[in-house]
Amino acid sequence: MKCVRCKAKPEVYLRAHNAAFCRGCYLEYFRRQVERAVRRQRMLAPTDRVLVAVSGGKDSLALWDVLAGLGYDTTGLYLAQGIGEYSGRSRQLVEAFAAARGFALQVVDFADEDGGMTVPDVAALTRRSPCAACGTLKRHYFDRAARDGGFDVLATGHNLDDEAARLLGNVLHWQRDHLARQRPVLEPNHPAFVRKVKPLYLLSEYETATYAFLRGIEYVVEECPNAAGATQLLYKDVLGRLEAASPGTKAGFVREFFRTGQPAFAAETTPATGTCERCGMPSFGEVCSHCALVGEIARKRTEPRRAVAP
Amino acid sequence: MKCVRCKAKPEVYLRAHNAAFCRGCYLEYFRRQVERAVRRQRMLAPTDRVLVAVSGGKDSLALWDVLAGLGYDTTGLYLAQGIGEYSGRSRQLVEAFAAARGFALQVVDFADEDGGMTVPDVAALTRRSPCAACGTLKRHYFDRAARDGGFDVLATGHNLDDEAARLLGNVLHWQRDHLARQRPVLEPNHPAFVRKVKPLYLLSEYETATYAFLRGIEYVVEECPNAAGATQLLYKDVLGRLEAASPGTKAGFVREFFRTGQPAFAAETTPATGTCERCGMPSFGEVCSHCALVGEIARKRTEPRRAVAP
Repeated sequence: MKCVRCKAKPEVYLRAHNAAFCRGCYLEYFRRQVERAVRRQRMLAPTDRVLVAVSGGKDSLALWDVLAGLGYDTTGLYLAQGIGEYSGRSRQLVEAFAAARGFALQVVDFADEDGGMTVPDVAALTRRSPCAACGTLKRHYFDRAARDGGFDVLATGHNLDDEAARLLGNVLHWQRDHLARQRPVLEPNHPAFVRKVKPLYLLSEYETATYAFLRGIEYVVEECPNAAGATQLLYKDVLGRLEAASPGTKAGFVREFFRTGQPAFAAETTPATGTCERCGMPSFGEVCSHCALVGEIARKRTEPRRAVAP
Repeated sequence: MKCVRCKAKPEVYLRAHNAAFCRGCYLEYFRRQVERAVRRQRMLAPTDRVLVAVSGGKDSLALWDVLAGLGYDTTGLYLAQGIGEYSGRSRQLVEAFAAARGFALQVVDFADEDGGMTVPDVAALTRRSPCAACGTLKRHYFDRAARDGGFDVLATGHNLDDEAARLLGNVLHWQRDHLARQRPVLEPNHPAFVRKVKPLYLLSEYETATYAFLRGIEYVVEECPNAAGATQLLYKDVLGRLEAASPGTKAGFVREFFRTGQPAFAAETTPATGTCERCGMPSFGEVCSHCALVGEIARKRTEPRRAVAP
């Protein structure tokens, strides 16, 4: 087998495409795939100011690397969630990545927000699962940073495996509203929102890991410790088995959904969105879920301590 | 844990329902589930003449047992497909089952049809996969027997696992027309067709096997030898893993599809169906796929033998 582009000795084999690439041609292939997704889905205009959400993992760092390489005006956004060593290490890697390339980076430290909002604290105080707490907080700080910084777009590193797992979950429960909203590009439905895009949505975890490796990008390999046993990982595992038996299954599942399946759900009405009276971000009620959480925590912190069940 | 109905010592535990049953109450539960599906989906009228497709497996024999027990006018239909020992054994079991209960049974022997149409012969002559050949033949002989016998309904033993696996396949490829047509009740769209119903569509493989076992029904345990490695088995396996992690997943997937998901695809137009000029059964072209297959085989049998590639 030879590199499909230049016939040189190959270093990467993609089973889903039945194609091999040498190092240089693989990097080129990966960039072209990102470019194509951006163009076909009209994700970015050339003058857009792009905020790239970076976690320190392979996907978001690969995305930032490619978008900056394609000449987009990018700024990284890292959320320091306070999840022990995992957060410490990922922040270090993100800061080193940005510094080495002279990229602009913003950091939001959850410990400094609203009197201290790290994920473990919020989870413990409110008896939410860490993932539920993290989801509410992440969405809020992403959206706020995009609005306050005057960005046009928020780009995230969701890859094909993420999208396929989310789609499988939505399909197993036939959540029509979720099926209607799962898109590679989400146009803002409120003045405080910016466009949200996922340029890697058709590139697999394996492809982004290979890109990051060949580009010498140092990234956090571990999953977030809270994610262990999460349903999403089970879905990925199951999709991995289907992919192994029939390469291309994941890409077909996601691509055909957007082409053929989703139009069936497109007529769904999305509920009108109001504005949170505290933070001005979109909200279904008078107060958004983030500000409700902040209020709940403030109350809990001033309450007299109660005996905790053993 | 006690029987949920009579508090006796339980013999069966259903994880998806988190419920235990004694032997008698389990059989009662199973019959009620079938009755409820029949009533809610308007599958059968009390005076309907029902043709039950029986393979010799647990599902179809359990179905026949329950429908006859509920007082329906049933006749069994067994297709002798000529798949070696598997067919021999399953025919024997079906005939013994019917004889012991005094049930009416029809047998269609593929070896006697159209100059000999056993699945291995057809597969070898036409280079179709055995499963593709079998599918075309089965559909034809089922429909023909229902029409010629003046039956009102054809009932098949498809269970929850069958329906969930089929649904997963349809969803992975987003086949909108298949999604629109996958139903527990299929009303005839041609005068030569009868209604087709699947009264076990919400009962799992485990539940039907347990019913058959507790009723002392002897059935073929082996899968059809041609099915080994079939995609359907992989889908069942994957769904089994999801079910193990979250009991009730399969039933939710199928039930919510019919309730919430399928209406999104219901507007799909089904192509108008014509009539086969040879056999009078429904057909998309001038000749139905069965008669086209019969013609192909007749030609191949009269052709001079050609050297076969090694």
